[in-house]
Amino acid sequence: MNFKTIDYKNGQLIILDQTLLPNEEKYIKIDTAEDLWECIYQLRVRGAPAIGVAAAYGVCAVMHRYLKGLREAYCFEKTDCVGEAILKEKEILIKQSFEKKLTDVTKYIRTSRPTAVNLFYAMDKIDDVFSKSKESAKTAEELLQIIENKARELDLEDKAFCEAMGEHGLSLLKPNMSILTHCNAGALATAGIGTCLAPIYLGEERGYNFKVYSDETRPLLQGARLTSWELNKKGVDVTLICDNMAASLMAKGKIDAVVVGCDRMAANGDGANKIGTLGVAVMAKHFGIPFYMFVPSSTIDMNMASGDEIEIEMRQGDEVSNKWYEKTVAPEGVTDYNPAFDVTPGNLITAVVTEKGVVRPPYSENLKKVLYK
Amino acid sequence: MNFKTIDYKNGQLIILDQTLLPNEEKYIKIDTAEDLWECIYQLRVRGAPAIGVAAAYGVCAVMHRYLKGLREAYCFEKTDCVGEAILKEKEILIKQSFEKKLTDVTKYIRTSRPTAVNLFYAMDKIDDVFSKSKESAKTAEELLQIIENKARELDLEDKAFCEAMGEHGLSLLKPNMSILTHCNAGALATAGIGTCLAPIYLGEERGYNFKVYSDETRPLLQGARLTSWELNKKGVDVTLICDNMAASLMAKGKIDAVVVGCDRMAANGDGANKIGTLGVAVMAKHFGIPFYMFVPSSTIDMNMASGDEIEIEMRQGDEVSNKWYEKTVAPEGVTDYNPAFDVTPGNLITAVVTEKGVVRPPYSENLKKVLYK
Repeated sequence: MNFKTIDYKNGQLIILDQTLLPNEEKYIKIDTAEDLWECIYQLRVRGAPAIGVAAAYGVCAVMHRYLKGLREAYCFEKTDCVGEAILKEKEILIKQSFEKKLTDVTKYIRTSRPTAVNLFYAMDKIDDVFSKSKESAKTAEELLQIIENKARELDLEDKAFCEAMGEHGLSLLKPNMSILTHCNAGALATAGIGTCLAPIYLGEERGYNFKVYSDETRPLLQGARLTSWELNKKGVDVTLICDNMAASLMAKGKIDAVVVGCDRMAANGDGANKIGTLGVAVMAKHFGIPFYMFVPSSTIDMNMASGDEIEIEMRQGDEVSNKWYEKTVAPEGVTDYNPAFDVTPGNLITAVVTEKGVVRPPYSENLKKVLYK
Repeated sequence: MNFKTIDYKNGQLIILDQTLLPNEEKYIKIDTAEDLWECIYQLRVRGAPAIGVAAAYGVCAVMHRYLKGLREAYCFEKTDCVGEAILKEKEILIKQSFEKKLTDVTKYIRTSRPTAVNLFYAMDKIDDVFSKSKESAKTAEELLQIIENKARELDLEDKAFCEAMGEHGLSLLKPNMSILTHCNAGALATAGIGTCLAPIYLGEERGYNFKVYSDETRPLLQGARLTSWELNKKGVDVTLICDNMAASLMAKGKIDAVVVGCDRMAANGDGANKIGTLGVAVMAKHFGIPFYMFVPSSTIDMNMASGDEIEIEMRQGDEVSNKWYEKTVAPEGVTDYNPAFDVTPGNLITAVVTEKGVVRPPYSENLKKVLYK
């Protein structure tokens, strides 16, 4: 990609501030736990996989800087009056401070976005590897290295999952197709090339010459601000439309396939995704257009029988009437329905694309075959 | 209604400035032909029937003021040196000036919105009655009276059509229903109580206790700014939603019926209406919800075989990315698809409601039965 959503190098984390897109491509440096918390809370980094990886690297960056501070504070070296015993004591103190701080930081970062499953997953992984290593590790530096390795593992795993979903997804698409997408499940939402946008990037590299239509995705406009920005940035032919224009394109035969992400999928293939996804799926079904949902296997909850069990986050109504605008565009008090997600039933989904392969209906049978293979 | 979209009294036309809604309820006085032209061009008054009636009254208001000016200019009365012949000459001059001005004004007003069929219809009616009366009318005042009568006739006709559509529409609805609407085909778009909102107002008076969901209707937000404003103003329980939230409500069983207006209908029942209507119709069909299109008979073109022949106005893409916002919400150059309307095929329309009655499929047969009865 010709931009970096998350960039960790030499103990420094740099994040693309997505709240300023598409008007400004600004990268911010994460120095403190407070920086990291604010960055996740304010959605400067968003998208479940991206949050997980950013949080993991963010903890490393914070600890890197903290450790540097400790070393500066305990700067004394061996002299005539500083013996081996004191130096050993110093290392113990530094390691204890490091351990205490790390525990505090991961705990604190978990509170930045309490509904983000990947955030908890990443913090669990860091906490686990830390617990397992803290006895055997000799220095704080060694501990830092261990959590950095874990963060990099999460990063590489996410990148690999994106690539795999891209390859599986591309097997469903043909050159010169026109593809509709909704919301943002792209490189800005992951550490890699995205979930549902991954096949588009791979196809672009291989001369597939896709034409993409991006739903603007009201009320938060992720399709306008993020998806059309990242596709355009990478040179993909992308046209932004209002959510309500998709049917018009479909009726004219201008959409060959729909690709969307997924926030949570039940064992029967019902998938929750950004509000508006269900409508797109219904329209695709009506017009005989394949509808593909891209679902990292970690998003599939085999213990949940159907989408009815998925709890939908309800948000403030003023996002509909007031956000983005100088003045409200609706009379006071008329907005009180603003669900963040809707559930697309499995019977409207032509195929589920996971990093392990493409799953076709019936999902109750076939999801587990692919997941447990 | 507790607001007046168009108000003509004592030769004065007052119009509710719809561009300022929902933040300000401001009424503007139309004095000159330029005022009227600007008012239509800038969409201060909009909606096909409302434009027609406003234009007709507007011409009367302009002519009323013009005639007053003429009378002030030719203010001399009979005196010793002003005889009957001169007074007669004066009346002829005033009448000639009036006639010339009227011809100029209707011609000029036609250029204010070249795609508005009702505008031409209203100007034709004024021109016709003027042509037929200009010989027999003795004074300019008499001519003014004649065009005022014609304007009032258009106004009353529109009000009567709204009432009739309201009654027919109400026969399809039941108390306590939840009703979805798209765009604005209400009192703000007509001289009366609207087309598709008419049954809601009648139901409200009769204790039907409807709950209305209004699609915000991107990109111009007529549902947010206008429909939710007028329903709320009249005390109807209305909730504003983003266009992409309708499917979520339908899936939950929260929508019992859909009512929408129509800009143009072909003989087979294909109806063009505001962009997004087609998607709502597809979703209503999928979820088994009746979809009613409200169509004044003047909107039905029996010479047009199908909706394929309806030409769709394409608008500037920056309405999607830039309008309403302080900064653009999309990268430059990614918006070039912005149709103002889409065509809903007759097979997705449960019933067509005209002022002459409710029409059920097959429309190719039944539309003419109702229209020509």
